[in-house]
Amino acid sequence: MDDAAFAWHPLATPEGKGWPDEATLRRYDRLPRHAEGRVSEDVWGLSRMSSSLYSRFRTDATEIRARWRLGLEQLAMWHMPNVAVSGLDLYGESEPGSWRWVGCAAASGFPEAENVLVTGLDPADRRYTVYFGLFNRLEDIEIGVPEGASFELVPADPTPPVVYYGTSIVHGAAASRPGMTLPAQLGRRLGRPVIGLGFSGRGKMEIELAELIGEIDAALWIVDCLPNMDADLVAERAVPFVQTLRARRPEGPIVLVEDRTWTGSWAKSSQAELSEAKRAAFRAGYEKLVADGTPDLHYVEGETLLGQDRDDTVDGSHPTDLGFLRMTDRLEAAVAPLLIKS
Amino acid sequence: MDDAAFAWHPLATPEGKGWPDEATLRRYDRLPRHAEGRVSEDVWGLSRMSSSLYSRFRTDATEIRARWRLGLEQLAMWHMPNVAVSGLDLYGESEPGSWRWVGCAAASGFPEAENVLVTGLDPADRRYTVYFGLFNRLEDIEIGVPEGASFELVPADPTPPVVYYGTSIVHGAAASRPGMTLPAQLGRRLGRPVIGLGFSGRGKMEIELAELIGEIDAALWIVDCLPNMDADLVAERAVPFVQTLRARRPEGPIVLVEDRTWTGSWAKSSQAELSEAKRAAFRAGYEKLVADGTPDLHYVEGETLLGQDRDDTVDGSHPTDLGFLRMTDRLEAAVAPLLIKS
Repeated sequence: MDDAAFAWHPLATPEGKGWPDEATLRRYDRLPRHAEGRVSEDVWGLSRMSSSLYSRFRTDATEIRARWRLGLEQLAMWHMPNVAVSGLDLYGESEPGSWRWVGCAAASGFPEAENVLVTGLDPADRRYTVYFGLFNRLEDIEIGVPEGASFELVPADPTPPVVYYGTSIVHGAAASRPGMTLPAQLGRRLGRPVIGLGFSGRGKMEIELAELIGEIDAALWIVDCLPNMDADLVAERAVPFVQTLRARRPEGPIVLVEDRTWTGSWAKSSQAELSEAKRAAFRAGYEKLVADGTPDLHYVEGETLLGQDRDDTVDGSHPTDLGFLRMTDRLEAAVAPLLIKS
Repeated sequence: MDDAAFAWHPLATPEGKGWPDEATLRRYDRLPRHAEGRVSEDVWGLSRMSSSLYSRFRTDATEIRARWRLGLEQLAMWHMPNVAVSGLDLYGESEPGSWRWVGCAAASGFPEAENVLVTGLDPADRRYTVYFGLFNRLEDIEIGVPEGASFELVPADPTPPVVYYGTSIVHGAAASRPGMTLPAQLGRRLGRPVIGLGFSGRGKMEIELAELIGEIDAALWIVDCLPNMDADLVAERAVPFVQTLRARRPEGPIVLVEDRTWTGSWAKSSQAELSEAKRAAFRAGYEKLVADGTPDLHYVEGETLLGQDRDDTVDGSHPTDLGFLRMTDRLEAAVAPLLIKS
């Protein structure tokens, strides 16, 4: 790639991050340094993936490039392409507060990647959001614009964020690109930062996560862990998890989300029964918490998170962009009124 | 994988194929042997990819496996994962004529792949459809079921097919898995075979393709080539292409489909103008054909094929499952009434 006429700009602290840079070991870590050793090793490893982190900048460039350094050699997964796992996704502000997709870039290699995010833009001075790869570690990134084009960082949005804690589904499996995850879509819909703390294969209401997400001065917390738990674990952990979070954050809605229905469960009654049992345990925990006087607690049922055509996951479990759009519709409907009220 | 207790069954001639086995060089070729040398080399190469081909079988197995041999070493692409490019996708018949997703499998290696398609099924005797990889060559495939489980091939559906000719979008970029392409989705909706003749980077209304698709005794033809053509090429080729097809097939609807709107074109007026120009040329060709008395010719506008959120492609051009579902909605609405009438 001919970079002769390009100027390269580093980005600032990413948005969608729950802690300031000085609290984390590395800029693109999703958990703070004091979480190391306190969360399990695999959660810690997953917290170093740049899922749900993004940066904003303003430029009048007609072409935007990126070069970035990755920490994990596996650039793609069997059900997710390079651009989602290790790439970048770019949205432009088409009207004030309205963000539309405009470009993306796959990782050209490891550890160094360089690619064009978008070219052929009409000359216009606008703000952009770049979302980072979902299942890789971002070590560093620079944005390139033609020499002479303007470039400035956009200050972080001070609106109190939503915290979204969960499993691989919140982590982003299986979005087609980084801007289509639940936290990313919900963030654009709600017009405020969504801190995505999804941990693939984990996200099991570990009590230390209740303590950690309780450190974030958020407007609302979403807890979406059932896909990786069974009924016994839900019965054991749901109530203390919410009590711990509520004790640290006496105010602000807490939204409990059931597991989405497995799309192949029409032919597998064992899967359907598993869902039924864990939902019953979750519902019972929710009702106990409400009966005990836990304030501002909300509950979203799992059955209508995905569509009735059962065609919106890649593998029975992980939503495609189609599934994520439908889930975002449901979650926005549940969450937006709570944020207006608050 | 422990295959000790599995019985392996070859599949028959795939469905979704426009010519009988004896007319093609290889079982999973999409064009007949007499097309070699007549179509361009790249179209010929692309015609050997198993996009839109599928087979059906009936079994009472509770687990279904597959082993298959691939012809191309590249198992994934930057914007499409292994399971879509080289994998398999399985639907089961949940009610008579109604097919629902139940399992999928990525290619475990090259050239030989083996994987579990689905496990944990309730005991039930039902029909299954397995769709083949979109951007790889399928050399051979066997389905494995536990010893003692029933297995029989389902005879090919004799319903006159729809032929869908086009570009990479018809070819399947960028579906999450093989069952989510336009031909696959449309086939399930319409309840009849759809022969997908999408050619990535090609599909430019080459006159020899009009002759070739005119060989197929179809109920309806869809021509969806604009994404890879400019206005001049459309002006040059659209009328003779349709005339050639109509001459070979005097009866049956021919549906002309405009290009979907580039999702990044809100920020790139050059892209929007390109679409506008080629659509105008296509519309003019259509009107000339109608004025000349060409019967049963239909026209679908491009602007509403995808959604107004512009979030339904992976790269501005190629629809994700979200985009393909929306396009299928539009195409079904356009095509289904024509098939009922015919």
